[in-house]
Formats: sequence, C-alpha cells, structure tokens
Amino acid sequence: MTEPTTENPYLFKTIGIIGVGLLGGSIAAAARRRKIAKTVLGAGRNPSRMRAAQQSGLLDRGTTNIAETSAQSDLVIVCTPVNQIVQFIRTVAQHSRPGTIITDVGSTKQKICEDLYGSLPEGVTFVASHPLAGSEKAGFEFADPNLFQHRPCVITPDASLPIEAVAKVKQFWEALGMHVLETSPEKHDQILAETSHLPHVVSSALAMTLTAENRKFTSTGFRDTTRIAAGDPSIWLDILLSNSEAVVHSIDKYTQSLHRLRDAIKNHDENLLRQLLEDGKKNHDALNSARPQ
Amino acid sequence: MTEPTTENPYLFKTIGIIGVGLLGGSIAAAARRRKIAKTVLGAGRNPSRMRAAQQSGLLDRGTTNIAETSAQSDLVIVCTPVNQIVQFIRTVAQHSRPGTIITDVGSTKQKICEDLYGSLPEGVTFVASHPLAGSEKAGFEFADPNLFQHRPCVITPDASLPIEAVAKVKQFWEALGMHVLETSPEKHDQILAETSHLPHVVSSALAMTLTAENRKFTSTGFRDTTRIAAGDPSIWLDILLSNSEAVVHSIDKYTQSLHRLRDAIKNHDENLLRQLLEDGKKNHDALNSARPQ
Repeated sequence: MTEPTTENPYLFKTIGIIGVGLLGGSIAAAARRRKIAKTVLGAGRNPSRMRAAQQSGLLDRGTTNIAETSAQSDLVIVCTPVNQIVQFIRTVAQHSRPGTIITDVGSTKQKICEDLYGSLPEGVTFVASHPLAGSEKAGFEFADPNLFQHRPCVITPDASLPIEAVAKVKQFWEALGMHVLETSPEKHDQILAETSHLPHVVSSALAMTLTAENRKFTSTGFRDTTRIAAGDPSIWLDILLSNSEAVVHSIDKYTQSLHRLRDAIKNHDENLLRQLLEDGKKNHDALNSARPQ
Repeated sequence: MTEPTTENPYLFKTIGIIGVGLLGGSIAAAARRRKIAKTVLGAGRNPSRMRAAQQSGLLDRGTTNIAETSAQSDLVIVCTPVNQIVQFIRTVAQHSRPGTIITDVGSTKQKICEDLYGSLPEGVTFVASHPLAGSEKAGFEFADPNLFQHRPCVITPDASLPIEAVAKVKQFWEALGMHVLETSPEKHDQILAETSHLPHVVSSALAMTLTAENRKFTSTGFRDTTRIAAGDPSIWLDILLSNSEAVVHSIDKYTQSLHRLRDAIKNHDENLLRQLLEDGKKNHDALNSARPQ
C-alpha cells in the first residue's frame, strides 16, 4: 500500500466512478475538494449527461466507456442501482489492471458479496461498502462534497480479501469524512433493514395514507416524517426486494410497536402510553450521542 | 370591530398569553415583530420563568396573575396543554371585560368546543383555534417569530358565535402570516388524527423499534422520520387521549397501507410495490403545491 507523501499527497492517483448521479457525483466533488485523487473519471449511460458532468468541472473526464474508465483507475466506485452492481463490477474487473481496487455504494450487501467474493480475476479486489449518506434528490446537479461528512460507512469484507485493499477502502471513506464500521454482509442487511429500509416503508405507508382533501391540513411534522418517501421508487424497489426477508421481519417488529401504542390509546392506558412515548423520545434523543460528530 | 388605522396601527391594543412556552412565546415574538398588539402580556405558573420572559423582552409584563392579565387584554390566547385549556378559559372569561375575545392553540377541538360554546359569561366570546405550527423543542427560549409564517391555522367556530369575533380571530392568525381554514370541531379532530396525530404515533413507533446496538448504523433518513417522536410525551399523551377514537381509526387505516407494502415485498410483487411507492411519493410531492407559500 502506498501511503500519501508530500510529493504525492493523493490517496489514489486516479479514481473512476461508474454511475454519476447524486451519490457518484458527491463522491467526485468530495474527492476533488479533499484532494483524495489526482484525477477523477466518470462513466455513465447517457453521453450528454456525462459531457455535462465533465463540463461542470465535477469530472476530469466523463464518458460512456466503462472499459477505458476501469483500465485507467486505481480505485473504481460503482454507484449504480443495487440490482445492477454485480454485473457492472464484473465488467469493471474484466478491464482493470492488476492491483485495482473496486468498491460500491449498494444499500444491501449479502447478494453482492455472495456473488463476487472469490469470483473476480486474480489481482483485482472488490471490497463491498455502503456509505450511509444520501438524499431524496436525484442527479449529479445536487452533488454535495459534504454529503459524507460525519456519517457512517459500513464495509463488509470477508477473510479472503487482501488486508491492504480493505485498509485502503477504509482510508478512502475516512478521507471523505466518514466513520467506518465493519460487519458481515448478512449482519449488514439485517441491521439496515431496521435502520434504513424500515424507515422508508414506514414513511411511504404514511404518505400513501393521506387523502388528497386533507393535504392542506398538514404541517412540518407530516412533511418531515414523509420526506424519505420522496426517494426514487425504482431505487427503493430494488433495495427492498433485494433484502425482502429482513425487511418483512422489521416491518413485523415495527407493527408490534405500533399496536402497543394503538392499544394504549384505545384503552386510555395513560401510564403505558406515557412510557411508550418516553421510550421513543429517549431512543430518538440517543441518536445524537450515538455517532461521533 | 375596530379596523387598524394609521393613528392606531394595532389590530389589538393589548393581548394576553396564558402559558408562555414555545408556542405562546412565538406568538408574543410574532405579535411584537408584526405590530399586531401595542402591549403583550403573559401569565404562567412559574414566577421566575415569567420574570425571565419579561426580562428577555418577549413580554411587556410576565406574571402568575391570570385574573389581572385577563382583565387587561382585548384578546387572550390560551396556550396551555390541551387538557387544561377548558379550565383556563373559564378562569380567563370570569375576569375578562365585556367584549374580550378568547382563543386557544389546542391540538384537538371537539371536547373544548362542546364544553365552552354557549357556556361562557355574556359579552365574552371564545373562538377555538389550532395553529398548525410547532416544534419538538420546548420553552419560550426557542420562541420564533416566523414559526407561523405560511402555515395553516384551523378555526372551528359555530353558528352561535358573533361573526365579528370570528373575523377578528381570523385576522389575528392572518396577521401572524397564517393561512386560515375553517371547519367544524368534529371534522377538525378527524382530519388532524390523520395529518398530525397519526404521524406522531408512526414516528414514535419507529423510534421505539430501534435497538440500542443499531443506533450507530442510522443516517439522516431514520433521524428525520423520528424527529417528531422527540416531542414532549406529556403534551402528546393529552393530544392522543383527547382524540383517541379518530386516532385509532387512522392507525388502523395506516396499518392497512403498511401491510399492502409488506405483502408486496414478501411476495416480490414488483409491479404492485412500484405502484405503492409511486403513490406515496406523489402524495408527498403534492404537499409542496397544496399550500399557498
């Protein structure tokens, strides 16, 4: 592993981003701002979008050529929708030089790791990642170099991976300002079902429930609680279906909490209702101290 | 009704706020900033808190004397927790001069209106209000003169009330920057069960469900979706119990939405799941156009 030096201050000479949307674009912006890579390449499907990303200064070069982008990069970050990650990583690996490291930003990890660990060409290493940062907005126009600052990133390596490559991926996310956590792919998907996929389902169900004639009677509470329901349905469809078992389990656990509240309200059980509301408040308030800022 | 003139630019000479917390304090700050009242009085339980509110410049006078505050005010706004509103309004009405208008900020309206309409002393009029603005923060220290700007306020008068008094209360909320909606107390409680009380229950249930060891794996989505769960449990206890029937009905309707999502995920029904997520997104996105800004 080459450590950055005064002569070569960059963690990577060249990074390549496959899929330059909100997340990919924000990685490009942050990598540039923080001088993590000397050259930032991007590849995507739409030639005019890629030209626009290059012209905006976000990328040193934006093309539709994944092979070329892969061949020229020391680290490739695949930022496509979750159900396309495996195929894109296989393509990237085919065209990469030996020593290239590949990572991703997929919201579920078990299927990706099962498919890819131990099955890529010799000399190319894939280390799975999930930066817990995002937005309900879409497109590199909303790229934000501070999107990753103080947020957690989960990496899910296994024992077969070269420890230098794992360390380098960890360094990359830390250089973006993230706090890196490590767990198994299976455990990741169980945890994220509760902390990320469940909130999306809960929020979408609330947005679905609102009748049109009652919209004008909403305030900030309703709007905040349904903010994440504005996320791209195609992206969330993939995430929820790629982790369906754990998500259904979380929904069932949540339904129990909901029904404890419901029954306390129905039975006018003041003591129980107070206790439940206090538990919820404590759990929310604890979030502020759970994470290094 | 006296309209404001150049010589007397104020909508009310003196307003009195009973309960100077986040909402009462924000009304005081907004009334002062927008020159709605020449004099802003406040009354509360805790003498040192009331002195502090006066010393901070929020109130012209802060006391524990509700009788005196009521006797000197042209409009009294009762900003106490919802289960104390009726008793406070009776006390205010006892000490008010004829012609005084009383309103409130209670989150449920049916019980309050049933108790008070037609039962106050001659010459004193209560017009029930519910400004849909607030915060999970508590205390006048967080008072925000812009809290009401562009937000809806529901008033629930009945046919027995003098139309001048109703018009004056409407003018008051409009002068605070609010968009006033009018409905019956019963209808208000049914609507708000869906648009305000349900989101609180949904958010609290999500916060309750999170296990402590998973806290560090949360991101902005979880935090935003549980923001309102940080609200004061005592206040929400009263609100939920004072509208329990409609709240339980809303929870049951919500549970149906949640289970449609759950079953679509469990059955890997991609088309249905996409449709449901799109419905939720459309409903959320429509909130931005539902309200005059």
